[in-house]
Amino acid sequence: MDSFMQCAIEEAKKGLAEGGIPIGSVLVRNGQIVSRGHNMRVQENDPLAHAEIVCIRNSGRLGNYSDTILYSTLMPCYLCAGAAVQFGIKKVIVGESENFPGGPEFMREHGIEVTDLGICECIEMMKRFIKDRPDLWYEDIGK
Amino acid sequence: MDSFMQCAIEEAKKGLAEGGIPIGSVLVRNGQIVSRGHNMRVQENDPLAHAEIVCIRNSGRLGNYSDTILYSTLMPCYLCAGAAVQFGIKKVIVGESENFPGGPEFMREHGIEVTDLGICECIEMMKRFIKDRPDLWYEDIGK
Repeated sequence: MDSFMQCAIEEAKKGLAEGGIPIGSVLVRNGQIVSRGHNMRVQENDPLAHAEIVCIRNSGRLGNYSDTILYSTLMPCYLCAGAAVQFGIKKVIVGESENFPGGPEFMREHGIEVTDLGICECIEMMKRFIKDRPDLWYEDIGK
Repeated sequence: MDSFMQCAIEEAKKGLAEGGIPIGSVLVRNGQIVSRGHNMRVQENDPLAHAEIVCIRNSGRLGNYSDTILYSTLMPCYLCAGAAVQFGIKKVIVGESENFPGGPEFMREHGIEVTDLGICECIEMMKRFIKDRPDLWYEDIGK
């Protein structure tokens, strides 16, 4: 696993430690981390504070995202996939999509290269969370 | 024009008066406004603070959005369309799509009823803004 995904996993763990949803994200440009973030819905009481949204928000106003890579521990939902499409991000690398299918086809239709690493640690972390806190999880995905 | 769209236009004008991008949004449930908001990218230095995102954020954590209607002065971009799809909003009513085509087909594919009112006031307000501040506008749509 590359070190950027490791950072995304660290972010997810920070979120869990804060009583939040363990999803982490990192934005990378030219081999360097531009910003990182984790889901903040519980912490900020904001239904839209998904990990990828928080991460992109933390990047400030880059203006152009076409040379960035978005890492996430979980396959982006339509909100976050929509952000990637709208901002012209060309590459999305995810930890897993077993616990949530997200919108990979939507991203691919818009020219984004989506790679699913199927990382055991990501799968297990999310599976445990969904089992422990189904209330939070199902609220998060708009159900 | 119904009064909810009038409120969205008011929000857009507030944004313009603050030196921001004149796009406004209102979320409605059972004939009542749940929340309102306008684009805050300039004001909050947040590239993701699109009007619809701010408006949904201002609603707190409703949990279920299936009986809400999202109004916006402009056709939602993929970020905001993705939010509507992910949160299960069933109806989106927009002021115009002349100045920006957005993602109506993506929303319709996911079962959202999209109505474009083609309101002159919305078209003119946005057209003037794009002419006056092309720098801000083209940054906003991720170009």
